[in-house]
Amino acid sequence: MDFDLVITNGIIVTASEVLPSGLQIGVRDGKISCIGTNLPCGGSTQVIDAEGAYITPGGVDSHVHLAQKNAPTGDGWETGTRSAIAGGTTTIIAFASQEKEDLSLWPVLDEYIKVSKDQSYCDYGYHFILTNPTAEILHNEVPLLAKDHGITSVKLYMTYDAMKVNDREVLDILFTCKALGMTTMIHAENHDMIAKLIEGLERNKNTEPYFHAVARPRIAEDEASYRAISLAELADAPMLLVHMSSDVAVQHVRDAQGRLLPIHAETCPHYLFLLSDKLKAEPHDHFHGAKHVCSPPLRHSPDDLEGLWRSIANGTFTTFSSDHAPSKYDVPGGKRLGLVDGIPRFTRIPNGLPGIETRMPLLFGQTPACQTPEQARLSLPRFVQLTATNPAKLYGLDGRKGSILPGYDADLVIWHPGDTGSCVIKQANLHHDMDYTPFEGMPVGNWPRYTILRGQVVWDQAKGILGKLQYGQYLKRGKGEVLTGRTGNLPRGMLEDERKYWR
Amino acid sequence: MDFDLVITNGIIVTASEVLPSGLQIGVRDGKISCIGTNLPCGGSTQVIDAEGAYITPGGVDSHVHLAQKNAPTGDGWETGTRSAIAGGTTTIIAFASQEKEDLSLWPVLDEYIKVSKDQSYCDYGYHFILTNPTAEILHNEVPLLAKDHGITSVKLYMTYDAMKVNDREVLDILFTCKALGMTTMIHAENHDMIAKLIEGLERNKNTEPYFHAVARPRIAEDEASYRAISLAELADAPMLLVHMSSDVAVQHVRDAQGRLLPIHAETCPHYLFLLSDKLKAEPHDHFHGAKHVCSPPLRHSPDDLEGLWRSIANGTFTTFSSDHAPSKYDVPGGKRLGLVDGIPRFTRIPNGLPGIETRMPLLFGQTPACQTPEQARLSLPRFVQLTATNPAKLYGLDGRKGSILPGYDADLVIWHPGDTGSCVIKQANLHHDMDYTPFEGMPVGNWPRYTILRGQVVWDQAKGILGKLQYGQYLKRGKGEVLTGRTGNLPRGMLEDERKYWR
Amino acid sequence: MDFDLVITNGIIVTASEVLPSGLQIGVRDGKISCIGTNLPCGGSTQVIDAEGAYITPGGVDSHVHLAQKNAPTGDGWETGTRSAIAGGTTTIIAFASQEKEDLSLWPVLDEYIKVSKDQSYCDYGYHFILTNPTAEILHNEVPLLAKDHGITSVKLYMTYDAMKVNDREVLDILFTCKALGMTTMIHAENHDMIAKLIEGLERNKNTEPYFHAVARPRIAEDEASYRAISLAELADAPMLLVHMSSDVAVQHVRDAQGRLLPIHAETCPHYLFLLSDKLKAEPHDHFHGAKHVCSPPLRHSPDDLEGLWRSIANGTFTTFSSDHAPSKYDVPGGKRLGLVDGIPRFTRIPNGLPGIETRMPLLFGQTPACQTPEQARLSLPRFVQLTATNPAKLYGLDGRKGSILPGYDADLVIWHPGDTGSCVIKQANLHHDMDYTPFEGMPVGNWPRYTILRGQVVWDQAKGILGKLQYGQYLKRGKGEVLTGRTGNLPRGMLEDERKYWR
Amino acid sequence: MDFDLVITNGIIVTASEVLPSGLQIGVRDGKISCIGTNLPCGGSTQVIDAEGAYITPGGVDSHVHLAQKNAPTGDGWETGTRSAIAGGTTTIIAFASQEKEDLSLWPVLDEYIKVSKDQSYCDYGYHFILTNPTAEILHNEVPLLAKDHGITSVKLYMTYDAMKVNDREVLDILFTCKALGMTTMIHAENHDMIAKLIEGLERNKNTEPYFHAVARPRIAEDEASYRAISLAELADAPMLLVHMSSDVAVQHVRDAQGRLLPIHAETCPHYLFLLSDKLKAEPHDHFHGAKHVCSPPLRHSPDDLEGLWRSIANGTFTTFSSDHAPSKYDVPGGKRLGLVDGIPRFTRIPNGLPGIETRMPLLFGQTPACQTPEQARLSLPRFVQLTATNPAKLYGLDGRKGSILPGYDADLVIWHPGDTGSCVIKQANLHHDMDYTPFEGMPVGNWPRYTILRGQVVWDQAKGILGKLQYGQYLKRGKGEVLTGRTGNLPRGMLEDERKYWR
Repeated sequence: MDFDLVITNGIIVTASEVLPSGLQIGVRDGKISCIGTNLPCGGSTQVIDAEGAYITPGGVDSHVHLAQKNAPTGDGWETGTRSAIAGGTTTIIAFASQEKEDLSLWPVLDEYIKVSKDQSYCDYGYHFILTNPTAEILHNEVPLLAKDHGITSVKLYMTYDAMKVNDREVLDILFTCKALGMTTMIHAENHDMIAKLIEGLERNKNTEPYFHAVARPRIAEDEASYRAISLAELADAPMLLVHMSSDVAVQHVRDAQGRLLPIHAETCPHYLFLLSDKLKAEPHDHFHGAKHVCSPPLRHSPDDLEGLWRSIANGTFTTFSSDHAPSKYDVPGGKRLGLVDGIPRFTRIPNGLPGIETRMPLLFGQTPACQTPEQARLSLPRFVQLTATNPAKLYGLDGRKGSILPGYDADLVIWHPGDTGSCVIKQANLHHDMDYTPFEGMPVGNWPRYTILRGQVVWDQAKGILGKLQYGQYLKRGKGEVLTGRTGNLPRGMLEDERKYWR
Repeated sequence: MDFDLVITNGIIVTASEVLPSGLQIGVRDGKISCIGTNLPCGGSTQVIDAEGAYITPGGVDSHVHLAQKNAPTGDGWETGTRSAIAGGTTTIIAFASQEKEDLSLWPVLDEYIKVSKDQSYCDYGYHFILTNPTAEILHNEVPLLAKDHGITSVKLYMTYDAMKVNDREVLDILFTCKALGMTTMIHAENHDMIAKLIEGLERNKNTEPYFHAVARPRIAEDEASYRAISLAELADAPMLLVHMSSDVAVQHVRDAQGRLLPIHAETCPHYLFLLSDKLKAEPHDHFHGAKHVCSPPLRHSPDDLEGLWRSIANGTFTTFSSDHAPSKYDVPGGKRLGLVDGIPRFTRIPNGLPGIETRMPLLFGQTPACQTPEQARLSLPRFVQLTATNPAKLYGLDGRKGSILPGYDADLVIWHPGDTGSCVIKQANLHHDMDYTPFEGMPVGNWPRYTILRGQVVWDQAKGILGKLQYGQYLKRGKGEVLTGRTGNLPRGMLEDERKYWR
Repeated sequence: MDFDLVITNGIIVTASEVLPSGLQIGVRDGKISCIGTNLPCGGSTQVIDAEGAYITPGGVDSHVHLAQKNAPTGDGWETGTRSAIAGGTTTIIAFASQEKEDLSLWPVLDEYIKVSKDQSYCDYGYHFILTNPTAEILHNEVPLLAKDHGITSVKLYMTYDAMKVNDREVLDILFTCKALGMTTMIHAENHDMIAKLIEGLERNKNTEPYFHAVARPRIAEDEASYRAISLAELADAPMLLVHMSSDVAVQHVRDAQGRLLPIHAETCPHYLFLLSDKLKAEPHDHFHGAKHVCSPPLRHSPDDLEGLWRSIANGTFTTFSSDHAPSKYDVPGGKRLGLVDGIPRFTRIPNGLPGIETRMPLLFGQTPACQTPEQARLSLPRFVQLTATNPAKLYGLDGRKGSILPGYDADLVIWHPGDTGSCVIKQANLHHDMDYTPFEGMPVGNWPRYTILRGQVVWDQAKGILGKLQYGQYLKRGKGEVLTGRTGNLPRGMLEDERKYWR
Repeated sequence: MDFDLVITNGIIVTASEVLPSGLQIGVRDGKISCIGTNLPCGGSTQVIDAEGAYITPGGVDSHVHLAQKNAPTGDGWETGTRSAIAGGTTTIIAFASQEKEDLSLWPVLDEYIKVSKDQSYCDYGYHFILTNPTAEILHNEVPLLAKDHGITSVKLYMTYDAMKVNDREVLDILFTCKALGMTTMIHAENHDMIAKLIEGLERNKNTEPYFHAVARPRIAEDEASYRAISLAELADAPMLLVHMSSDVAVQHVRDAQGRLLPIHAETCPHYLFLLSDKLKAEPHDHFHGAKHVCSPPLRHSPDDLEGLWRSIANGTFTTFSSDHAPSKYDVPGGKRLGLVDGIPRFTRIPNGLPGIETRMPLLFGQTPACQTPEQARLSLPRFVQLTATNPAKLYGLDGRKGSILPGYDADLVIWHPGDTGSCVIKQANLHHDMDYTPFEGMPVGNWPRYTILRGQVVWDQAKGILGKLQYGQYLKRGKGEVLTGRTGNLPRGMLEDERKYWR
């Protein structure tokens, strides 16, 4: 019992408990070795006094876009992961993305691995985006993704001309992933509805950034979510609907969970805090709304926010991710691609918002740590579930990431003790390589004082970034866990013995 | 006040009332001229004594396939409409069908008109099936369908390789029809789910007729119905979901109706009376199930029937049609196309069942006219709504067809007075050109004693067919009526003023 | 074919059709004898030219309080029924009311009959309010109500100290009525919730009229409605929930109707047009809100109105009644009972609003007769169902009242032809014996030009009241009709064969 | 770091994780002092080798009836708690029960304390049953229950003549408890429905035990649950619905949880494993069904079980309790009270089943520890939540009971390592003072090998009961935690500012 690091005097929060104060965390070889009282501290043991602060698991951000080809102006790995640890995130899962013309995944993967290798401040893994799931890829390559590379999740798009797959392809992927124990992530919006609306908007010359929100109404997400759930029901396959923004679509998820379907749901900070008025022109910058163009779009009314907060609290949402998808505003090749000869064309604006650094503080600010009990939006254990435990389990990192328990990596966030309600988000204070934050000026109730990754302090708010660029490790992930429902359900209306005929 | 025909001593049933006995119907020039008491009967007036029997409007069967190219072995116009009047149906709406390669509707329409002209025992009109809705057709031809030909409804398929249109095409058609006041009928099944299942069934050599029912589970109808309703909601367009067979899909309709969307629903006799056991092999005929292959398929359990009967009674269903789609069983080119080298291949079996003649008696048998009040499935006015009034209104025949009221065509069914519970359906007694009926041996509580079309007795059960082949008239139909909900609703999640930007 | 009266040139509206113009209605001996064209008019035949106006059935107002003991200052029979015919209502059903101490219904009935006899301008019947359903009354008297007096409906209160019955009494009444084919009307609000709220409001000295609306929140109606439906489900008994004001409570009805339970629902004009701001003080009259005190109270938001209008259109509401419950505002013994020593006490304010005269015009004003098709709230046939056909059928007047068909009483409203959009409701123009109308200043699109009762013009807008006080007839009513669902359903969770054990 | 006890080589299960193997639990002074690896074991340290078995928190059974006056023949404290520890339960919460004539709670409490003092093998606390909540009791005594005695929960009955409180009393209690941070438990069945059914059953001489199940149909639980939830919504008060048995009632809970109401739900082993056929006569014992008489009753169909299992898995149920309510079968004063002169009278049969000892093994048997992943009904963490963590939190024992974490009492169950699928429940093996078990002959997958209470092995399957009768401690409980939803919600239909007027 000899520890490299002992953290004393904190209040540990797990996915189900706020532990009594007075406990200590003993760390050795980067892992939590012991939790208890009176841990022995030898001469070589570093001691951190948490001063009564909450300690939560290091954040797991399972939806991050870094250095993807279609967003050349935003964060690469260095700046993105630097931003992550400064905001309390110690693990990210980013995307490797097939393009339609890629008939093999291997060259794609090689390239993504190359760009991230030794370029990360935090631990990381990859989801694979499939846009052209050929039989060859599904039968011969996807199994090796999991087996050889620990990539146990794929993502699909039901919209975007360059990415979308059709229902049959969704089914093919779901069946393949189900058989391999992999999780399928789906961006669900009805492409044809949106295309029809865009055609009308363009015909009427309504091409300002705001019309991006008009072009993608909630009904498009509602329909596609119901369809995706139905396809997953037929395939009996675990699925996560990414970045959900519409209460009615989330209700489909809740209904499915009630029936024990393995349907998971994710939402993101911007859908909980921002509304579509952010897409409107500002007095001195008519294109300003482009900063807030993302898909699904920011919604119109406080009721929309309220509905999502309800699903944060009642357990429907499984994960809370940043969907960090950065494109700079004021440089060529960034958001300004949506200005064609000075005329705004919302369809050309790169989609996405930055948010990797602000994710954890924004949500922590809504817990009883920063709010009165009646005003708090969620409990501290629920915060831990959404930001760390659930994404770790769902994506095959259980036992290593996402919890403060012996045997797990010593990934920790130590928040400030006491009241720090005066903290405000400012672009000037952030560590990403972006020229704006969509949350500018928003108060948050606290900020990570220390971020610890595998026992090393990588962020000290007083000293800044302490981590090293090569310290982040690539994570081979195992099979994910089904967190809601189960597999083995019969699709509605199918008889018990029918499955054997066609499976 | 001089009548060609006076019908006395019947009990008139309308869409909302069972009238007191003792009323008379006075007919002149093929129209109902007067309803009342003590109507004067001159020497030239024909008098029919209804002997206390119920009198209902002549049936309007709004879903009938006759002489379509893909079903060469079943009924043509002569036999199909002969069968119609023998069963109490005086108006049918059949289909003219574009094929993918038809780049103009006019040659298609010409051909369909030619084949039906002077070949019908009953009045008739056409819906147009669109399978390739080019911009040219939508902008230039569909408007003329309504204006010049009185064809004010189109039908789409979301499934079948040869027919299916995609979501974008569904939307284009819905918007076009909405603007023209036309009604869109949709066959809603998720094509890709079915294709995936068929692939599995064939891989496992499960190709007997029964597997047709396995290949098209309720979830395929459920999903596609929800999608169709969502597309109609975006387009704010009146729609009818044809031949619904699944309670959960019907529940989507009921929810939509609750929100006042203009969504209508149809079901058919076979979905109310038959189950999938009919698709199984019989001792001496392993291919026998082919007789009952239709899409959606017959469902598995009595609970499915119960759910549909509930929607018959509670008003969710708008129309009750035969979907008469005849292919002979025991001739080349008919159902036996599904036997390839003696091996059953359910995917090759022509879809569809005959039922134009049995539709009215089967449903009438479930009213209080034939059942105790507690056992009756629906009221007599509801029978009238489903079989006559609603299809007449929905498809632009209001004021002429579907009701027993002055000014309307004198299309009437006079049922047998008193109890006739011993009546049983037998192929030998039917008037279609088919070699089987799917309802063989089923008891019905009554049968039309007289069918009257525009004042002429065309069916007298004692004497047989009295109508003439050329008597049936082509019906130019007007704009349909929205029977549930209304147009003018906002798609869910859209703001009041958004529509102006893209419409 | 000799008519006392022929009405020409109108557009007849029934519960399911708007008939072609050009039809004539022939009346003889107070009944509609004939509808048709070219009706012979002899010398003694009165002819009314409707000039193209709509003709609807005379209104049936099935929820009217007249001359009840607890409301001594408002309308008696003379003024109430005079007001009715001036607004197009030709039949009312009023209440005879047991008080807790009445151990026999007969003296009560005698008194009510006495006060109404020869005192009515319109035809009328009685519902019986039961407040103390002793075994004696249920077993011996209620059956005679139906048999001897044609009183085939009873009403219960789940709230009000002086009136409320408990769940067991509700069940006893439901079972009794079910066995007799009688309909049970229920005022559903949770008494104890309201009492608890009143206690708190009084403790805090919040006793202004407005707090009446605070004391009876929607949840009180929601809960009690669900309970009433559940009790009716157990008893398998037809029921009507009176004066529903809350969308969520109405949703319980819609769900029940979907399951074919015989649950009917009523709403009233004030719940469709007025909000709780009407209960607030006015600058020069702080007690003014007392005019709008009724239970359930007027609701808070336009969304509440919207929800009810939706249920008007989608068929959930069965009847639309006035709940005319008049107490004068500015006389002793009226609304001012709620001023105790000059201090407002909302609990002492007599409940109820006048509305018998304005009911029909207010709703007619929302049909396509007075609105553009997109803005119309309901169709003309739906107007007829709600105001005449449905209450007539539900309360056992089918065949006599509620429809324009041969054999029915010639009770008709002929509206003004053409546009009359400038009509405004003013107390000065009304015929009740009240000192205010809650609808003061509201525009209506039309007003009855003639009201005809059994062939006699009793209201001519140009000439005023033409009817005679003794002309109104007492209606012995028959058994009511189940208009939604049916009896014979199993309560949820009960087995098929269980009922025999306890029924 | 000196431990009294170290447990090695187990797999620890918490409410959210199955921990990696190889961890040790260090216990000192009855509490878990440390969890980690390489814990030092001194000479005085007892070591238990778990041999790879799962270790779960000691069970918390929060619904136990012991030594209540109305069940004199079943278990008292000695036998009941002996049975508890033999089945892995280390904490129980029993009931002290007011009778209607008790106008003060203190004498009641004194008596209950007396009977349990030094008579318990396990730790224990009390809920207080209120049957006559006078103002005096609510204002002056209930606050002291919490403050002085650590009794922070009360229970109410909506049924049973001797116990039932009315809606107003429910509200009064809810408001009182809400203000004190206490939790209200409610037995929800509609009393009047049941009384009506019993009257009918008795009239028809249907009094065999089976008719107990007929007399209490699911609709009685459905209605009362909806009502209880509505009352709690008005009071904004945390509530638990006890022993839920009906899917539709549970659906009300799920809907309420979706809206963030603080509504919790409990179910019991018998509702998950047994059906109403158990209430039928057996060949040689026509009264045998009396053994299975409990309220709500066992339900009729496997679908009922399925629905409850779904709610076990999807998180709707908060706790899983035994509702141990023992009355011996074959002694005077027990179940045979229901035999009156040899004639069965189901209404006289004492309600309740024994189950304190079998609760934990029955549910553990449905986890992946004993089932294939596809057949498992719930995960291991969910087992821990339901049997230990949730009841501990809900009833104010968080930080002491219900979890395996440093600082908590060392209450543990060590299950058998490996497969023990042959275990079968037999009355002969149980430790209660009863003459039957309702689960006779049911296989369970495992059984506690050791039960440890505050660091002492109190049950060793090889050696039997090792605990001492006086070892069990009385638990003063703190305020409970809201586990679903939150307080601070507005009742539906109430405006934001309305509450201030009456609270």
